Amino acid sequence: MSVSVFDHPWLSALLGDAEISRCFTVEAELRAMLEFEVALAMAEAELGFIPVEAAQAIANAAMIFQPDPAALAAGVARDGMVAPDWVRQLREAVGTPHGQHVHFGSTSQDVLDTSLILRLRPALAILAARLNAFDSRLAALSADHGSIAAMARTRMQRALPITWADRIAAWRAPFARHQKRLQDLNPRLLVVQFGGPVGTLDKFGDKGPSVAAALASRLDLAVPAGAWHSARDVLAEFAGWLTLVTGSLGKIGQDIALLAQNEVADVTLAGAGQSSAMHHKQNPVLAETLVTLARFNAAQLSGMHQALVHEQERSGAAWTLEWMLLPQMVVATGAALARGLALLDALRIHDKH
Amino acid sequence: MSVSVFDHPWLSALLGDAEISRCFTVEAELRAMLEFEVALAMAEAELGFIPVEAAQAIANAAMIFQPDPAALAAGVARDGMVAPDWVRQLREAVGTPHGQHVHFGSTSQDVLDTSLILRLRPALAILAARLNAFDSRLAALSADHGSIAAMARTRMQRALPITWADRIAAWRAPFARHQKRLQDLNPRLLVVQFGGPVGTLDKFGDKGPSVAAALASRLDLAVPAGAWHSARDVLAEFAGWLTLVTGSLGKIGQDIALLAQNEVADVTLAGAGQSSAMHHKQNPVLAETLVTLARFNAAQLSGMHQALVHEQERSGAAWTLEWMLLPQMVVATGAALARGLALLDALRIHDKH
Amino acid sequence: MSVSVFDHPWLSALLGDAEISRCFTVEAELRAMLEFEVALAMAEAELGFIPVEAAQAIANAAMIFQPDPAALAAGVARDGMVAPDWVRQLREAVGTPHGQHVHFGSTSQDVLDTSLILRLRPALAILAARLNAFDSRLAALSADHGSIAAMARTRMQRALPITWADRIAAWRAPFARHQKRLQDLNPRLLVVQFGGPVGTLDKFGDKGPSVAAALASRLDLAVPAGAWHSARDVLAEFAGWLTLVTGSLGKIGQDIALLAQNEVADVTLAGAGQSSAMHHKQNPVLAETLVTLARFNAAQLSGMHQALVHEQERSGAAWTLEWMLLPQMVVATGAALARGLALLDALRIHDKH
Amino acid sequence: MSVSVFDHPWLSALLGDAEISRCFTVEAELRAMLEFEVALAMAEAELGFIPVEAAQAIANAAMIFQPDPAALAAGVARDGMVAPDWVRQLREAVGTPHGQHVHFGSTSQDVLDTSLILRLRPALAILAARLNAFDSRLAALSADHGSIAAMARTRMQRALPITWADRIAAWRAPFARHQKRLQDLNPRLLVVQFGGPVGTLDKFGDKGPSVAAALASRLDLAVPAGAWHSARDVLAEFAGWLTLVTGSLGKIGQDIALLAQNEVADVTLAGAGQSSAMHHKQNPVLAETLVTLARFNAAQLSGMHQALVHEQERSGAAWTLEWMLLPQMVVATGAALARGLALLDALRIHDKH
Repeated sequence: MSVSVFDHPWLSALLGDAEISRCFTVEAELRAMLEFEVALAMAEAELGFIPVEAAQAIANAAMIFQPDPAALAAGVARDGMVAPDWVRQLREAVGTPHGQHVHFGSTSQDVLDTSLILRLRPALAILAARLNAFDSRLAALSADHGSIAAMARTRMQRALPITWADRIAAWRAPFARHQKRLQDLNPRLLVVQFGGPVGTLDKFGDKGPSVAAALASRLDLAVPAGAWHSARDVLAEFAGWLTLVTGSLGKIGQDIALLAQNEVADVTLAGAGQSSAMHHKQNPVLAETLVTLARFNAAQLSGMHQALVHEQERSGAAWTLEWMLLPQMVVATGAALARGLALLDALRIHDKH
Repeated sequence: MSVSVFDHPWLSALLGDAEISRCFTVEAELRAMLEFEVALAMAEAELGFIPVEAAQAIANAAMIFQPDPAALAAGVARDGMVAPDWVRQLREAVGTPHGQHVHFGSTSQDVLDTSLILRLRPALAILAARLNAFDSRLAALSADHGSIAAMARTRMQRALPITWADRIAAWRAPFARHQKRLQDLNPRLLVVQFGGPVGTLDKFGDKGPSVAAALASRLDLAVPAGAWHSARDVLAEFAGWLTLVTGSLGKIGQDIALLAQNEVADVTLAGAGQSSAMHHKQNPVLAETLVTLARFNAAQLSGMHQALVHEQERSGAAWTLEWMLLPQMVVATGAALARGLALLDALRIHDKH
Repeated sequence: MSVSVFDHPWLSALLGDAEISRCFTVEAELRAMLEFEVALAMAEAELGFIPVEAAQAIANAAMIFQPDPAALAAGVARDGMVAPDWVRQLREAVGTPHGQHVHFGSTSQDVLDTSLILRLRPALAILAARLNAFDSRLAALSADHGSIAAMARTRMQRALPITWADRIAAWRAPFARHQKRLQDLNPRLLVVQFGGPVGTLDKFGDKGPSVAAALASRLDLAVPAGAWHSARDVLAEFAGWLTLVTGSLGKIGQDIALLAQNEVADVTLAGAGQSSAMHHKQNPVLAETLVTLARFNAAQLSGMHQALVHEQERSGAAWTLEWMLLPQMVVATGAALARGLALLDALRIHDKH
Repeated sequence: MSVSVFDHPWLSALLGDAEISRCFTVEAELRAMLEFEVALAMAEAELGFIPVEAAQAIANAAMIFQPDPAALAAGVARDGMVAPDWVRQLREAVGTPHGQHVHFGSTSQDVLDTSLILRLRPALAILAARLNAFDSRLAALSADHGSIAAMARTRMQRALPITWADRIAAWRAPFARHQKRLQDLNPRLLVVQFGGPVGTLDKFGDKGPSVAAALASRLDLAVPAGAWHSARDVLAEFAGWLTLVTGSLGKIGQDIALLAQNEVADVTLAGAGQSSAMHHKQNPVLAETLVTLARFNAAQLSGMHQALVHEQERSGAAWTLEWMLLPQMVVATGAALARGLALLDALRIHDKH
């Protein structure tokens, strides 16, 4: 299918990101779900809630488990999420007598949210690396070309002379803040979800926190103050961070598209895009794409915040809305950083002022 | 890939729509693009702008043309859209001497926008049919169960007795308006895009309108007042219509989820969803999904209207933003109508008041 | 207070609209509410539901009724809307024995929604007149300067020569559609709201539609298919129309800001704005303002569509959200049209190409 | 005027906040602008850029300066912002020979952005205090009533027993994070804006940073890495924080509205709202208002992020958009916290399960 540009065989070459998208394949999703269930079984065995043999049987089955996709789809259509049918299939795969211990004390949202976090972790690492690379590339650009005279333009009019070092410093400023924000956000985001059916870990008596800690430790995630089934602020905050990043890149893209206008020509772009009808044109495609991705994320972000109004102990409607928005935002941000890097590579600054 | 729920093998079973999605496959897209180029060549031959033999050669080549997907992706990454490289490949496929006549006087946006309209046409037909079916199902529900006593609730509190006929009449009212709006919108939307590089059909002298009319006639589309390269109001209006439809369905979904609460139990839902942890539960999955899809479209709509600020004679940034938003909105609307029909089928009304 | 730019003594000179704002003063609101109650009493007396003397007493009291603002504010804080306390005060003002007949068979939402419609009516007339004036001004601009050579720019790059007539024709095209849409919308929008507590006019037996018709007739409004307490699609559609208009104006504003860049200078703007620091500058303030207002409305529109998910027979939360969004959107649209007219007056087109 | 609910004499009693609104009066705005100019003059005198006598004259004039509002409005309509005409008037008020030293080396955006920050500072203090109070009130509620049995509801269906302590713990969790986020954000937000016409403090040679530091010190603000004329990420981040807070409150409001349904009746609300037609009703007005304010901010936030695409060294269009959105978001957040506190006061929890 190719409803979304991110899943489209050629539009994704412009707007998508193959590397980040790998965090959102069904393979990655199923792998992360299994990782949760195996770690859960191990943690529960360690604390005596299920037999050690059961945990081992679950781990063994997980090595070769291949769920039936048609049954999963039918399950999602019926249950609103994949977990119930997938757990049923996994229990069958583990077989008697240990299958019954799969997913003990847990709930669908535990496995699905933790699976999301496990897949966001590598995505975050990629985004952080690209963010650093982008900032370094700007620093290098300034070092190489910062002394070139430029013309500041305010309210779309020529204002006063500046240098390219001035312009690049203004471009860079938010990126240092984005790096700091990501450091602040990471410990809030990279946490396990574990609450059981209603967030209270009711099957574990007073040992709930111990199981959560053991589970988190095996997944190398932090333990939050409690289950966050219905408190989705950290995901909305993360979506906001993504949108800040794409916004800062969109601003640079807009600037470069303006600077590359023929009449301005303060910059040209190597390898700029072709028109199907006008071969003399050099379209600032990468620069425009950064604007597009910024505006895309800004629209999605609104939906992520609407999803904070999450009814009661778990909302189907609000939770599902996140699934529609967040993966796209992560990929859009990866794409914007990748396109931004390519744009800086293509940028040729001219000494005109 | 499965970044988007609409392209995801199992989430699409809940949130997607296989039938509508077929309008957004790459196969459908390539077919519509070819349909445009063949019709264009025929129209241009008819009016003497290219040789009749060239038009025939283009039509023949189109029957078997298979573009190289890798080259298309590389073209999109470079040019910001698929048309330039695809036209180049099609010209090669037609070969010498007729290949040069492919796409004569046209521009990328002509073929891509017209391709979109050609694919929206069957999608609109499906949506209209489902809208009618949904309205009829509501009418039948009222005919069958309208006399059952109900309790009106305002501001989340019990108000006064009504009947189910009253409730269903309130649910139905917007759907009659949606049908009327769609009739008003259709002639604005189902139009050809044809302007040439800068919207003026400069290659055709004073025959531009004739070529446009001949082209539109072959595609069974209407002829707009002029090229709409930079005037995107009709697409934003269409996106608004989609969001009105999902909003009305979301309202019904929200109502049913509230009516199906255990303590209220004015309705139950046959085949309601399962929980992975609590087998006694009957989750109103379809009802919640309608709320999700309504809020999704409401977020996207904002982006479609941001894209109206379309720079100059053609904007890369704003146009590309539409590609990211509109196909998803059409599929979400199709899904909402399909899920809405299933929800009405599952609805069991109880006589409690 | 001046939290909003629309109510701010000097920012409203840029972003607001004094004429449209008069539809949203408390005086206009109270007047429209009284108009509803008087027309309702007259209609009910005509149909025998309340004594003729009561209707006359209500009409007389309405001539001089001055509600206590502090009590209204306290009422809103407690009841979530002004109607309950205002009706109580009006009943007191009418006095014994007729005061009890005020608001008979009606509900808060009837008077508040109808009051909104009564105030939107003059706003619509102003918007329609300005829309026509703007379109005519564009036509005159084309008649006067259409033959001037221009340069089309696509994807922010020079493309091919056009004329100003071509450019203005592209600008004008959506405005003809906006006029048509408004004609289609008007009969849906200019309708009375009258349903009683739960939308069924339960106090009137089978005479409900007759009372509604008599009420509507006195207010010179149309009668809708039924009460639209919970079906808010027409307001969302209207918000969409406003956003289409500001979007089309925003596109023109963006174009003019680009054309007025010093290096391009295809146009200059008479009376353009000053900088506090750079006296040589001529800022395209009106052009930028059109972009701002377009993006403002595009953000608000999303909220109007979120408000379609309106729970049950009447929702406090969703209804109140409309109050926060719609008046601002109407004023923003009025402002955009007024600024757009001023921008066209200031536009000086240069023959450079 | 009363276009906005925040400036409306009685709707503001429900949706506004008198205390926070005082930060957005024109008086507060003019006072903060003067505070900037006086501090600037003092800092510049201290570093020898203007005569000490001039700084003193400016400080003296500022004590009694009353700008002409009509001229300010005309200035805004012409210049797109108030600063140019206001500076002109202030220079006149200072008179010859010192008036010429007013605003030396500065630009409109310096005074207007710093004025915003100076007014956000008390608003932040109020928000922080209310956030702490709200969290403490939740803690007290849990201490007093936490042992009461409750019913968890997931996907709108009864799930399993919990306690009120469990529910309140889930409500509280985000508020600890909001407090932490605010601490992280404060040093980024409470900074001076000072860059001069194009962000480079060109009038001060290599002393620009010293002037900025002296200015900031006098205003008790921090010094950012550089002028942030065109890098608006911190304001968008702040808007995101506001929306996270209202989102968390909206979730609690939605929960309470659901719990207060007659059929559920796990809680009642003291002093709940009246209906104009149904006197038996107790409407959960405060709870609904929290939902409304959450959805309002979620819509505005999208616009704040669209404004990140800020052209070149200073954008009129994007900057102005912030003025339309941010003050309302701050007041909406203040209102949500105030209404949230009142809602907790009114909450009566019943022992039913």
